[in-house]
Amino acid sequence: MEIRAFATPDTLRGGDLKGCAAVVIDALRMTSVAAQAMANGCAGIFAVAEVDEARALARECGALLGGERQALKIEGFDFSNSPLEYTRERIGGHKLIMTTSNGTRAILAAGEADRLLLGAFVNRAAVVEAVRDADRLGIVCAGTLGAFTLEDALAAGAIIRRLLDRGIHAQLDDMAQAVLTLYESARGDLHKALSGTRHYRRLTQLGFSADLDFCLSEDNLSSVPERGRDGWFA
Amino acid sequence: MEIRAFATPDTLRGGDLKGCAAVVIDALRMTSVAAQAMANGCAGIFAVAEVDEARALARECGALLGGERQALKIEGFDFSNSPLEYTRERIGGHKLIMTTSNGTRAILAAGEADRLLLGAFVNRAAVVEAVRDADRLGIVCAGTLGAFTLEDALAAGAIIRRLLDRGIHAQLDDMAQAVLTLYESARGDLHKALSGTRHYRRLTQLGFSADLDFCLSEDNLSSVPERGRDGWFA
Repeated sequence: MEIRAFATPDTLRGGDLKGCAAVVIDALRMTSVAAQAMANGCAGIFAVAEVDEARALARECGALLGGERQALKIEGFDFSNSPLEYTRERIGGHKLIMTTSNGTRAILAAGEADRLLLGAFVNRAAVVEAVRDADRLGIVCAGTLGAFTLEDALAAGAIIRRLLDRGIHAQLDDMAQAVLTLYESARGDLHKALSGTRHYRRLTQLGFSADLDFCLSEDNLSSVPERGRDGWFA
Repeated sequence: MEIRAFATPDTLRGGDLKGCAAVVIDALRMTSVAAQAMANGCAGIFAVAEVDEARALARECGALLGGERQALKIEGFDFSNSPLEYTRERIGGHKLIMTTSNGTRAILAAGEADRLLLGAFVNRAAVVEAVRDADRLGIVCAGTLGAFTLEDALAAGAIIRRLLDRGIHAQLDDMAQAVLTLYESARGDLHKALSGTRHYRRLTQLGFSADLDFCLSEDNLSSVPERGRDGWFA
């Protein structure tokens, strides 16, 4: 397997993901939310860039609305970007339209991939099983407002570490090697590795410590949102 | 000091380097070449994107021509992108126009910085002395054809490591933290850390092992090419 990693969506060039299985990572918190929603019976997720677009689409197809701007709930939305809100009681059987600052942008930027999956620490092992037969894998880190974020790099490294542990023979590009090294340097203490980063500190300050605990737990969920022909993740 | 690092020029957004001292790194080999040329008495370096532009400008100001396409010498140019060619005998007292695949693109992308310097392993200590009083430092990794490269990240980490060792109090953004971790993980053996990367292997295959030895030696040169008001590095 040939594995490439992308520091941010802006480092993708046209053609980079052609013929690839691609995993988009926005570990804090969008792709963790998506995995949690699917695990709790969500009927499908659609990602859009703009709030107005999300509202219109939700009305049109009777879906619920989730996401954030500046890490906070959007007015009139059913859910914020906190995975803990997406309980079976609230999301089970419902479609979900999501718009977030970074994860949705990364999903749109990775659109040309043959297969498009959403990955995070929480569903890492399940993602690995879903892509283990791919010839070419692209891992796209969402980052924050165009900037590289360490949490997405570590989650990318976690996926690669597990692929190698499962005996997959892989050629890694420079960024894939780098995220693997970064993950291994974290030595299993993701909270400590991220404690000095801006996004982690901001979420802590906003009172989202429980979200951080949830999102930084590895291999808890077996759900892997994958884009279907209709563009919905299920 | 606030330190931000950029994985590739494409991760720069307008305004990111405003008010900053910026160091552009293309360690293999453009910024190593620039440091070597200056150390050997080059009268000034100007970086341009296109080969024709380089030829025209060299004619206009009686400069020599250096650079590469696909790692090889450009037809009619005086120098390739091999630092070992830039001897005092050949470059001393001459102006130099450079065009390369990646370094020159990064220099142009970082143009808005207040101060713009060229850094590499070879002049790392001198770069640190040149920027140590800056309030804001941006380190721009050139990468290769838009993709992240490990060597530039390691050189960025080497600069940050030395700034910290010199007692500079610094706040690091996520990418700055990441490159520092990557540099520390290399544990002083840059050749080993890079041996699996594409660009290092390509240069080895093309017979540029002596260039690799030169470019991966730390703190050998005291020259720091810095952009002047006229756009020339000196």
